[in-house]
Amino acid sequence: MDGPIVSLLTDFGAGVYVAQVKAVLIEAAPRARLVDVAHDLPAHSIAAAELTLRSVAFTFPAGSVHLVVVDPGVGTKRRPIAVAARERLFVGPDNGVLGIAVAEPGAQVVVLDNDDLFRHPVAPTFHGRDIFAPVAAALANQRPLTDVGTVIDDPFPSTLPRPRGAPGRLSGESLGADRFGNLLTNLSSAELRTLLGTWRVAVDGTEVEWYATYGDAEPGALIALEGSDGFVEVAVRDGSAAARLGRDRGISIECRAAGS
Amino acid sequence: MDGPIVSLLTDFGAGVYVAQVKAVLIEAAPRARLVDVAHDLPAHSIAAAELTLRSVAFTFPAGSVHLVVVDPGVGTKRRPIAVAARERLFVGPDNGVLGIAVAEPGAQVVVLDNDDLFRHPVAPTFHGRDIFAPVAAALANQRPLTDVGTVIDDPFPSTLPRPRGAPGRLSGESLGADRFGNLLTNLSSAELRTLLGTWRVAVDGTEVEWYATYGDAEPGALIALEGSDGFVEVAVRDGSAAARLGRDRGISIECRAAGS
Amino acid sequence: MDGPIVSLLTDFGAGVYVAQVKAVLIEAAPRARLVDVAHDLPAHSIAAAELTLRSVAFTFPAGSVHLVVVDPGVGTKRRPIAVAARERLFVGPDNGVLGIAVAEPGAQVVVLDNDDLFRHPVAPTFHGRDIFAPVAAALANQRPLTDVGTVIDDPFPSTLPRPRGAPGRLSGESLGADRFGNLLTNLSSAELRTLLGTWRVAVDGTEVEWYATYGDAEPGALIALEGSDGFVEVAVRDGSAAARLGRDRGISIECRAAGS
Repeated sequence: MDGPIVSLLTDFGAGVYVAQVKAVLIEAAPRARLVDVAHDLPAHSIAAAELTLRSVAFTFPAGSVHLVVVDPGVGTKRRPIAVAARERLFVGPDNGVLGIAVAEPGAQVVVLDNDDLFRHPVAPTFHGRDIFAPVAAALANQRPLTDVGTVIDDPFPSTLPRPRGAPGRLSGESLGADRFGNLLTNLSSAELRTLLGTWRVAVDGTEVEWYATYGDAEPGALIALEGSDGFVEVAVRDGSAAARLGRDRGISIECRAAGS
Repeated sequence: MDGPIVSLLTDFGAGVYVAQVKAVLIEAAPRARLVDVAHDLPAHSIAAAELTLRSVAFTFPAGSVHLVVVDPGVGTKRRPIAVAARERLFVGPDNGVLGIAVAEPGAQVVVLDNDDLFRHPVAPTFHGRDIFAPVAAALANQRPLTDVGTVIDDPFPSTLPRPRGAPGRLSGESLGADRFGNLLTNLSSAELRTLLGTWRVAVDGTEVEWYATYGDAEPGALIALEGSDGFVEVAVRDGSAAARLGRDRGISIECRAAGS
Repeated sequence: MDGPIVSLLTDFGAGVYVAQVKAVLIEAAPRARLVDVAHDLPAHSIAAAELTLRSVAFTFPAGSVHLVVVDPGVGTKRRPIAVAARERLFVGPDNGVLGIAVAEPGAQVVVLDNDDLFRHPVAPTFHGRDIFAPVAAALANQRPLTDVGTVIDDPFPSTLPRPRGAPGRLSGESLGADRFGNLLTNLSSAELRTLLGTWRVAVDGTEVEWYATYGDAEPGALIALEGSDGFVEVAVRDGSAAARLGRDRGISIECRAAGS
């Protein structure tokens, strides 16, 4: 039988640190299927990790284990945790990188205090290899969450800004860009449908057209659309929205009910 | 039993889009063996995709499935296709990226119209995940080509320039460079042997020596040789031919029969 | 049963050359588990390959096969070799990249002269695919070392500089940096403990504090610590030691017994 996917998301760069984490996972959970999500996150950027995790957390199959190591406080008192949410498991430091999992209704969080599972001696500078990887392997091997740690109720929350609502309107912002320069935002299409029905979008104060896909727009047009992860995305047909707008974060994205 | 190789060639960059494609492949074809060919192609460059595919298309084992997603027209009317050629299978958009497969004698091409295979709902911006990956998985699972689509006879042709022949001579050009600065060309050694027997090479109008390998030449010498993919390559020993010549595409490469 | 890890360390960049090596490995050793160590080494840098290999060579599980291809002399008379050392196997050119394996007490080295194992025809420019990969696959399939070649006793030695000792003191140097700008050195903590007991460290002539991990230091402080591979490392809390010191190689790292 094939094991679950274990995804890897770090700021280690392509290289020896990732390889060492994989060697531990392969040895401890030989049936797991490893998938690299990203390793080129800006070093120590918790927000980038959380935004990237959002794209794969629940689009991966049920049973997947997501290992997230962006950990500027490695070896200090910040807690190592694991989270179970919506049939997926998450392992990483308690510094916000797992914020979107923690925020799910019914999420269960444990602090990793079963050090029988760790790789010893634990290097104070490399918990990714010596704590998080062996615990992710144990979870991939169907070990129950409460075997790897003790339940806590005060995990570090999500660091991503929440949209602000008002009657007939939802105001969000861009959180970053993908490699094509498309802006990722904190506005969920599902939430917009519930709150507004249909809507018009203004980006940085200027109204833009809504399209189903990039190729439907005129070349060079700044447009909005529903991204493949279910969030509003801002794009330029055959170009880069981030370059057009001169930045990728903190750009105001405002949606109003179409009738208002 | 182990499944076939499924190779992945995209312009997605290293990151979440590739990861999502892999998650779909792993879930739908758990025995397939995934191999990354490249994800750092210039965004939307169909010619780069085709040139890169050339290096692996038929050097990979028979039975391999090559998934190629460079798809600026995603979600518009361009057709999604699959191709069977020389015991390999190819999946991608009908925009030229599969041109070298389509050009093979006996190639069979289908348009992907069996949407029972797709991942639903199909995101208009991410056919790589929702159409191409599940179809590649079906083919990796030995599903017949005609199960995934309907035969067509007018696929988009190769976009790579063909060499021009004249008696005792074959004129080609450079198509790009590898990371060492070696120039890749459209001149096949097999074709040269058939047409010319033995030959002399001029690069950008200047005759250069032919060697079996880089290390046989003088340091700094501009040379020609047979690349590991069977095409003429231009190199600088311990240096970069692309840097030496100031560019990597469109450089004239002219071969004349050695006796002429 | 699952096969051993086969690690890949090259200067090929992410791309088609790595993919071709993997296709050969997967076909010839379908049970092996492939792990990328790095492919973005500076082209032709033997020292970088050796330093990178040091981080994974013996932290990977016993039985692992390490395939290292940084090979500026490909196709010339430099020998292809395999090495068995401390229950791990190593395959690559005899140019120093396997120096740390060769240097292990009891290491056994063979020149790869069993060309029945090779992929034919052998491309003179791509021994990674046609010689090293099939031999690594044979070793992953439990083929004995002496089946793949003939024992030699004069392999190319390590190119990494050795520390110099004097009573109460050990003088080393930085060998490069990781992506966080942490300096990697040639001073082993185990060796320091044996020779000096406890010690003080001077970096580039200036004494620095010793910490267990990055986060224990003041932000911006230049510190020394034991890296996760057992060697002394120099770091800046929340910063880059390589940037601070203006370079990453050849920086003097001097340890003196704490009482002296």
